[in-house]
Amino acid sequence: MSYDDTNIFAKLLRGEIPSHRVYEDDAVIAFMDVMPQGVGHTLVVPRAPSRNLLDADPATLAPLFAVTQKIAHAVKKAFAADGVTVMQFNEPASGQTVYHLHVHVVPRFEGVPLKPHTGGMEKPEVLAANAEKIKAALAG
Amino acid sequence: MSYDDTNIFAKLLRGEIPSHRVYEDDAVIAFMDVMPQGVGHTLVVPRAPSRNLLDADPATLAPLFAVTQKIAHAVKKAFAADGVTVMQFNEPASGQTVYHLHVHVVPRFEGVPLKPHTGGMEKPEVLAANAEKIKAALAG
Repeated sequence: MSYDDTNIFAKLLRGEIPSHRVYEDDAVIAFMDVMPQGVGHTLVVPRAPSRNLLDADPATLAPLFAVTQKIAHAVKKAFAADGVTVMQFNEPASGQTVYHLHVHVVPRFEGVPLKPHTGGMEKPEVLAANAEKIKAALAG
Repeated sequence: MSYDDTNIFAKLLRGEIPSHRVYEDDAVIAFMDVMPQGVGHTLVVPRAPSRNLLDADPATLAPLFAVTQKIAHAVKKAFAADGVTVMQFNEPASGQTVYHLHVHVVPRFEGVPLKPHTGGMEKPEVLAANAEKIKAALAG
């Protein structure tokens, strides 16, 4: 299947819909997942278009995972997390729901399981507050 | 916590214990997970020592995820999978059980959930046969 540039992350990258961004550079942006599997769940997204890892230009991956590492550090610090889960889903059988390559970075706490991938929408004010914590951790 | 070079993947990298390898280069190796969460579950591991993503030298990541993409393609082809799940766990709260950075690459099939991370050991002959399928897909 080919890339469809009407997907929600393509719109978000073009600024057509809002997001709670925590990081951006020439190649990659990171923003809060609006249906978080845990507090501080952040998505790391390359600007370059691809459905997922399977059709991504290999040149996309180095900056994507360099930022993923930065975000993993930042969310661990921002939320005093015990660990961090990194996940990347390819195609519906894997649970992918938006068809623009993205990496999930989820702070983890002892004894707290991940919430379902398609849980409820988080309140915008909570996402905004969490984004500020992550930005502070990235800056600190 | 600091890196402990007696972990099982460090031993495997040194050739002190066997593995069903499907790929190796100067920076990265890939081999079959002995407790697979699904058929064809493969681990991609940098030779450079780190506990996980949080303490990894950033230079480790570009080759690691370039190979992860190759392995994702190969397992999808080898097992005619519908999708591929990529996961990377940091610290016990995230489910990490071996403290050398590794990336899980799991072929996925419609309607088939992942098995638990700490399920049973797969038979060596099954792992060997699956490794051959992946090597053939990488070569083809």
